[in-house]
Amino acid sequence: MRVGLDVGGTKTEAVALDDAGVVVARVRRATTFGPDGVIATILASVEEVGAQAGGIVTSVGIGMPGQIVPGSGTISHAVNLGVRSLDVAAVVGGALGVPVDVENDVKAAALGAAVLRTAADPGASGAAESGLAYLNLGTGVAAGLVIGGALWRGVRGAAGEIGHLSVDPEGPRCRCGQRGCIEALAGGRAIAERWGRPGALPVADVFDVAEGAGPGGSERERARALRDDLVRGVAAAVRVLVLTADVDVVVLGGGLTALGDRLVAPVRAALRRSGETSPFLRSLHLDERIAVLPPGSPAAAMGAALLAAERGEEVLTVG
Amino acid sequence: MRVGLDVGGTKTEAVALDDAGVVVARVRRATTFGPDGVIATILASVEEVGAQAGGIVTSVGIGMPGQIVPGSGTISHAVNLGVRSLDVAAVVGGALGVPVDVENDVKAAALGAAVLRTAADPGASGAAESGLAYLNLGTGVAAGLVIGGALWRGVRGAAGEIGHLSVDPEGPRCRCGQRGCIEALAGGRAIAERWGRPGALPVADVFDVAEGAGPGGSERERARALRDDLVRGVAAAVRVLVLTADVDVVVLGGGLTALGDRLVAPVRAALRRSGETSPFLRSLHLDERIAVLPPGSPAAAMGAALLAAERGEEVLTVG
Repeated sequence: MRVGLDVGGTKTEAVALDDAGVVVARVRRATTFGPDGVIATILASVEEVGAQAGGIVTSVGIGMPGQIVPGSGTISHAVNLGVRSLDVAAVVGGALGVPVDVENDVKAAALGAAVLRTAADPGASGAAESGLAYLNLGTGVAAGLVIGGALWRGVRGAAGEIGHLSVDPEGPRCRCGQRGCIEALAGGRAIAERWGRPGALPVADVFDVAEGAGPGGSERERARALRDDLVRGVAAAVRVLVLTADVDVVVLGGGLTALGDRLVAPVRAALRRSGETSPFLRSLHLDERIAVLPPGSPAAAMGAALLAAERGEEVLTVG
Repeated sequence: MRVGLDVGGTKTEAVALDDAGVVVARVRRATTFGPDGVIATILASVEEVGAQAGGIVTSVGIGMPGQIVPGSGTISHAVNLGVRSLDVAAVVGGALGVPVDVENDVKAAALGAAVLRTAADPGASGAAESGLAYLNLGTGVAAGLVIGGALWRGVRGAAGEIGHLSVDPEGPRCRCGQRGCIEALAGGRAIAERWGRPGALPVADVFDVAEGAGPGGSERERARALRDDLVRGVAAAVRVLVLTADVDVVVLGGGLTALGDRLVAPVRAALRRSGETSPFLRSLHLDERIAVLPPGSPAAAMGAALLAAERGEEVLTVG
């Protein structure tokens, strides 16, 4: 039984997969901050999901925000978890006595998204010629690529870090120092900072104000500009992924996709508009290549569970 | 003995490789326009390079400008060759009685560039974790990707078509209808059209005027603006390739690289500048990841010669 975890800044999700790749147990708990807290959260989650599934855990895969050097089990710069650098694979593997793989959470979700699509449409993915990108729209913007049935991490683990591509030299200043980065336009944190109104769901607030009935005011104009930036940032990200890697599908996930069609419909419209002036872009049918993860899909945890098999360079299958 | 051809709009280059992948013969001839002319050029080139090498031709690979549906031997939209649609593999294979593979010339050059780098630095490429992009700076701008030792064509053969990514919504209008496409900034044809002065080498003319000594005038200002656009377009292309695919190296080729360090040095400087404001970009060492094909390297012809082996999904090696 393979266990996969998605360790996030606030909660940790765990799934157990049987030999056919079917989810047989799923648990969720709050993440405890800091290195010791994260390790304790991981061990408790594995124990709980293992007990719920009632089988023997043969491998553990862990998706986490932060940087992972390809081939290592060490996470670094996981600011949201309060972890500077931690060899998670060694510590958890030592405690559990099973193989442990660690991967960036967006890359793990890309693997999970590919498997979820294969399960939904056998033959759609996993083949040598297939390509899928997972575009995470959360606090930041980053993507994961599954190329020819395997996760493509890049030479230094940075593949898919498209958030810091500038698509507008006069665009808003990004935390990274550049202007007009995709993340400065479409990242949840950047939007919240530019919006500046307090609230638990600042991006939803932007959409509410932008879509509000009645006469507009300067606040509505500001909300609409932010919403337009978000839409053009996501559309730019889709173009970058398809024109560079020519993936068959860009699967959208992350917190901002809770907006559903309020976000996705204008992104599709923006992609259709660029096809109106460009026959080349039109021939790529970008608007039809977007898919959205169903709400609550445990893509990152599922992908994490499959890391051990992926490392063995098996072609991924799921029952 | 494997033969590879690079069929260009004006000339066709052919190489013959022995079993160890070493170039044992190389010929060049003018390309004849139109479907019949192109086929005649190909057959004459194969005969000539085979005779020069003095061995038996076991396979022929052909790189051509235009679109190729992955897995087919049909080229389409090869405007520079006067070919609308032609099943080159069937016609040439029927005439020669050997397996014939056809590939887009930029993708063939990417494969050739990967092999040339492996030959220069064994162990640098070809491995499963390696990644290389070949960025062709010619009439247009396009790239080819070699990921994990294999050419990544994309799901519809469009991988690497980054020329039509917009990086400036206020930039110059592109032939494709968008504004600020990488190709509108850095494509040889776009620069020649914007420059508007007659001459055989319009981009070199732009650089000559931009770099001219003596007091500047409006013509020099215009040349400098075009040169700056070219540099920022190439730098943007490098960023797109590294941040999306995290390739180890971006190999520059194509006619514009005849400018040598007049082009490459300011591109490196532009990449270093973006690292000055962005610690993330600095950590990627983009300026150090650029390489330039030696002038006259038969990268596309060499890559074409290796298409048959690549199709067999062998890991490419070269002696």
